Amino acid sequence: MDQERFQKGVNKLKEYTSEEQAQNLVHSDVLKDIAPDLRRFIVEFAYGDIYTRPGLNNKERALVTITTLVTQGVEPQIETHVNRGLTSGLTPNEIVEGMLQLIPYVGFPRVQNALKIVKKVLEQRDLKVEI
Amino acid sequence: MDQERFQKGVNKLKEYTSEEQAQNLVHSDVLKDIAPDLRRFIVEFAYGDIYTRPGLNNKERALVTITTLVTQGVEPQIETHVNRGLTSGLTPNEIVEGMLQLIPYVGFPRVQNALKIVKKVLEQRDLKVEI
Amino acid sequence: MDQERFQKGVNKLKEYTSEEQAQNLVHSDVLKDIAPDLRRFIVEFAYGDIYTRPGLNNKERALVTITTLVTQGVEPQIETHVNRGLTSGLTPNEIVEGMLQLIPYVGFPRVQNALKIVKKVLEQRDLKVEI
Amino acid sequence: MDQERFQKGVNKLKEYTSEEQAQNLVHSDVLKDIAPDLRRFIVEFAYGDIYTRPGLNNKERALVTITTLVTQGVEPQIETHVNRGLTSGLTPNEIVEGMLQLIPYVGFPRVQNALKIVKKVLEQRDLKVEI
Amino acid sequence: MDQERFQKGVNKLKEYTSEEQAQNLVHSDVLKDIAPDLRRFIVEFAYGDIYTRPGLNNKERALVTITTLVTQGVEPQIETHVNRGLTSGLTPNEIVEGMLQLIPYVGFPRVQNALKIVKKVLEQRDLKVEI
Amino acid sequence: MDQERFQKGVNKLKEYTSEEQAQNLVHSDVLKDIAPDLRRFIVEFAYGDIYTRPGLNNKERALVTITTLVTQGVEPQIETHVNRGLTSGLTPNEIVEGMLQLIPYVGFPRVQNALKIVKKVLEQRDLKVEI
Repeated sequence: MDQERFQKGVNKLKEYTSEEQAQNLVHSDVLKDIAPDLRRFIVEFAYGDIYTRPGLNNKERALVTITTLVTQGVEPQIETHVNRGLTSGLTPNEIVEGMLQLIPYVGFPRVQNALKIVKKVLEQRDLKVEI
Repeated sequence: MDQERFQKGVNKLKEYTSEEQAQNLVHSDVLKDIAPDLRRFIVEFAYGDIYTRPGLNNKERALVTITTLVTQGVEPQIETHVNRGLTSGLTPNEIVEGMLQLIPYVGFPRVQNALKIVKKVLEQRDLKVEI
Repeated sequence: MDQERFQKGVNKLKEYTSEEQAQNLVHSDVLKDIAPDLRRFIVEFAYGDIYTRPGLNNKERALVTITTLVTQGVEPQIETHVNRGLTSGLTPNEIVEGMLQLIPYVGFPRVQNALKIVKKVLEQRDLKVEI
Repeated sequence: MDQERFQKGVNKLKEYTSEEQAQNLVHSDVLKDIAPDLRRFIVEFAYGDIYTRPGLNNKERALVTITTLVTQGVEPQIETHVNRGLTSGLTPNEIVEGMLQLIPYVGFPRVQNALKIVKKVLEQRDLKVEI
Repeated sequence: MDQERFQKGVNKLKEYTSEEQAQNLVHSDVLKDIAPDLRRFIVEFAYGDIYTRPGLNNKERALVTITTLVTQGVEPQIETHVNRGLTSGLTPNEIVEGMLQLIPYVGFPRVQNALKIVKKVLEQRDLKVEI
Repeated sequence: MDQERFQKGVNKLKEYTSEEQAQNLVHSDVLKDIAPDLRRFIVEFAYGDIYTRPGLNNKERALVTITTLVTQGVEPQIETHVNRGLTSGLTPNEIVEGMLQLIPYVGFPRVQNALKIVKKVLEQRDLKVEI
């Protein structure tokens, strides 16, 4: 294990989740019995190498991430990253607007399905879209 | 034609292109002989209805747009919207960083192919990435 | 709101659903708290601007719509538009054949998953494929 | 080789191309040195087994085929099947309308790129969209 | 029905499932009321024509199949073909490694979602990844 | 830079290319002016972390890689990895068979377009498919 990159990744992950969630993600990975290195790669490479780069701030990286996930329709990760986006500073309205901006580029279905996930996450976090 | 939405769309399009380019896009559409309403739909709906919404600024909308296009690998539109992103205020570095942020979510190939287009556009505009 | 386009869209939507369902879709949108304009865009742009165009009839537009949704694998919308296709005049057999026609172009999995949705919808509507 | 299915496929293929083109496709396959069975599978399975089924006519099958290809953005096949669609009875206007119908489901870029191919094919065949 | 291709397909299918499962798949198809030819096409064309070809062995064909399904994110078929891959001789570790190999080409989300399915299948079959 | 992972990646890359090509890839990256870290990430993460894992050999990893690229239709990388597959020990026939195996899962167009690239690469390397 690459201790420095891993720690850098954990620190960055905490900015998108919380101290507790980040510890859970790292120590209680549901896939650790079959793919024990997967979580490490996510932490070291995605969070340690990529998310920590200068040039875009946390909110902008969350917006980019949510956008690609909605485009692909990968629903579990949309839910995860709407949560991380909110934690890292995106407002509910910015998340919704980012999805509506996709309509001319991916059509209505992907956007509609993603907004249902946003609705669920906002209810769980007791948040509202300020319009 | 819906004159108000159309004009609103043209005005917004100018913020992403230039007075001259926007006029060209509207008046010299290469597809006007076979689909004369397509350009109008793009101007009225995409630029008039969606891009003009509050909640995200021009730069953020350009970042979202480039992200979905790279995810889909639609190369002619990547070129168009890298140009529009630069005009609307994204720096070369922000565009490149937005693409690198996609590596953990779409893998290297789509990002590599998109960065070749960025390279070409930056050369055409005589711009450099400040690192 | 663009009253004329909206009304034109509602009228077209009724041809794919029913008086009652169209009213429900317009007035009880599940996403109205977070994205109050989404339903309006679907009605005005998709149904008002696009579905009302001459050149293809309702059945043909439903066939095109179902085809793109199966290709993308967006399941909630496959269910919605199999229902709308049946209401607008497609026979169960035409819907099934349209999906089988996709096998050489998308392979078996997408088609198989879509046909399971067709089966469910036909059972709900007490319809059979006449072979 | 399954002579009956193959001949059935060749006969169907002729309805989408011409006697001469069908012979060329079958006898001068560019991939025959590396994958000599590929053309046979296309003729036997796609054209022999699928295209010959009752329930949808040639024009409708062409419309379905073009729709899935535009959704996927596979450009060489869009060109091939716009040609086959025209030969099998789709009008230029029906092909264009089928693509515009996709805007709400795939967004503008895929549709725009496909319409450029339609434009090229119509010019090659000296055809116009009657509007 | 093409008795020879069908029987060849059933025989090959048994190598990926079991005598009993293969009979079930052929005789109790859930889609037989709406698309009675679909199962036949899968058996005759996919298993009879393609899987029986020389050049790659069963394990290699299973690895290729799982890879394309993970790339597309078609989850019901990922489950089916992880099972068939295990029956045809792929080890749990080979399946997991094949998926981790995809990270640089499709990103983490598709791989993570597929590995959750592998985990479920391994538990059902009481198998472990030997690391 | 992580010297150990980088060197491990370069060594692995040489098994898929050649001493000379690997040096060129590392030292003359066409994207180095705009994204100087991209090549490093490919070498360190893709080749250093992933390709070097036990559980699948070089040929199997190349087969998995080619399969996902054909499924996605990313043509520049299909060409690159058909070449790397051949260098790492896949035979022309195995590459072709791997692509034909995809027909039931992605349909004919993606496979046909990929096989044209295989044909070109085999001609450049003066190789033939032994059937």
